[in-house]
Amino acid sequence: MNFADRLQAAIERCGNPCLVGLDPHLDLLPPEYAAARDVTLPRAERARLLARFCREVVELAAGRVPAVKPQSAFFEVLGADGAHAWEQVVRTARQAGLLVIGDVKRGDISTTAAAYATAFLEGTSESDRDSLCDAVTLNPFLGSDSIEPFLDTCARTGTGLYILVRTSNKGSADFQRHGLPELSHLVADKVTQWGSRLVGASGWSSVGAVVGATHGHELRDFRARMPRTPLLLPGYGAQGASARDVVGAFGRTSAGAPCGALVNSSRGITFAWREKAHQGKPWKDATRDALTHMIDELSSALSATC
Amino acid sequence: MNFADRLQAAIERCGNPCLVGLDPHLDLLPPEYAAARDVTLPRAERARLLARFCREVVELAAGRVPAVKPQSAFFEVLGADGAHAWEQVVRTARQAGLLVIGDVKRGDISTTAAAYATAFLEGTSESDRDSLCDAVTLNPFLGSDSIEPFLDTCARTGTGLYILVRTSNKGSADFQRHGLPELSHLVADKVTQWGSRLVGASGWSSVGAVVGATHGHELRDFRARMPRTPLLLPGYGAQGASARDVVGAFGRTSAGAPCGALVNSSRGITFAWREKAHQGKPWKDATRDALTHMIDELSSALSATC
Repeated sequence: MNFADRLQAAIERCGNPCLVGLDPHLDLLPPEYAAARDVTLPRAERARLLARFCREVVELAAGRVPAVKPQSAFFEVLGADGAHAWEQVVRTARQAGLLVIGDVKRGDISTTAAAYATAFLEGTSESDRDSLCDAVTLNPFLGSDSIEPFLDTCARTGTGLYILVRTSNKGSADFQRHGLPELSHLVADKVTQWGSRLVGASGWSSVGAVVGATHGHELRDFRARMPRTPLLLPGYGAQGASARDVVGAFGRTSAGAPCGALVNSSRGITFAWREKAHQGKPWKDATRDALTHMIDELSSALSATC
Repeated sequence: MNFADRLQAAIERCGNPCLVGLDPHLDLLPPEYAAARDVTLPRAERARLLARFCREVVELAAGRVPAVKPQSAFFEVLGADGAHAWEQVVRTARQAGLLVIGDVKRGDISTTAAAYATAFLEGTSESDRDSLCDAVTLNPFLGSDSIEPFLDTCARTGTGLYILVRTSNKGSADFQRHGLPELSHLVADKVTQWGSRLVGASGWSSVGAVVGATHGHELRDFRARMPRTPLLLPGYGAQGASARDVVGAFGRTSAGAPCGALVNSSRGITFAWREKAHQGKPWKDATRDALTHMIDELSSALSATC
């Protein structure tokens, strides 16, 4: 089954479109994991702690949300040991029935792009299989020949892509809004085109787009411009976007269920214990409560517009 | 000493501006290393072979060229074991006195960008130091707030960046030539601006730009537009650009030596044994001869325009 169909089934099974971002920033880990910051410890030991923390978050998310999104930078910071931690976390998430969207934002050409696709979506041998992602994020700056090798891999393996179209940060305007039509619209049109060969039974393509939830007023335009493209919406929570900001990004199944988008929250969930609303709680309780709050808030915003 | 000054000193010491790209594509390794493709072997063993091959290339390049450019995708394809191989290769290259430009093309925002900068340029502890890069390639699509955390790291650690401006592939025109001024010119102007705080005693900035040597007629324009920006020119050799195509990218020191650019060749050097011109030679002889040819060809093209 292709990625888009697996994703839609998972959203319907969980009853919500929440995506938990795993951004295990060393400096923000709860006190129980403070040793991961201790530079006098062997790096492998620090990476084991990082992995253990992420696996605990994964367990809190399992069964409740359709997918998680580990951010590779926070693993790579511990080098080869961090890469090992990444594989453990991905494996744990997949075993727990979660879809894994690797937030790697790679972008390169021809055989180099193919090597990245192999690294994250296909593996070089059977034993890699459990630590592969269901989808990855990609940067489109290098153009079509940086995306095409991934499309081949996705078609072969039933995996997916989320291509950066309009990111949630302030600086995204520097280049993404350049030109007429603005660059992000041009990229959106290309995403639609690249995805046309990977549309599943659900009617959605396995080639998605990243559009910041912080650009609420633009979301309906992007939805209309990319009618079969699943959207990944960062920026909810810590970055300031609300549930109401994201409703325009969703479509509806024939049964009336929301579809076609995932709303991501990273540190608002993973590091909820640091926030005022959860002060004094053990970190796991804070994460669990923050996740419940996000699910409820999105569900009620989505049902209000049903 | 900052990156730009270390680079210029290395170019003058070696007497040439050649950059050897380490793209160890598993399928192209010489017969002696064919076991790296054997999926029945443990991945760690395959990665050891990959590392050993790259270290042999590094030894052939040491003392002859100023820098090498390992491509992370071809290491990541072997997961955490590949990441370990990357660290070994970087360490070997630095110990051999080569500057290392990590071709990672990362691009992300705020603390995520800072984590990538730590991963490749600064490390989290003293023991990481030997396997860090002197510079990395970056993708600018996310805008200023994706570059700024790297500028801070470069200022602190004397490292450098090469930002994608106009890549060597055909598809680069899809987005990089979009708009008026075209996007690549807008990025070039930003690169100049980002680099202004990192100009060294040599007069060059530690913030460089990647401009494909395949766009020969545009090179002089980019050179004029970014007068203090070191250029990294991919596309020489296998991708079709000649020594004459790249001369316009160079400046001159007061002593008349070429400066301000590196010309990259990856598989034309590393996999020279596969090319007709070197048929029948042991792979090391082919690589050594191809490197000699590139150095000679560039030196004579550059001295002809002196």
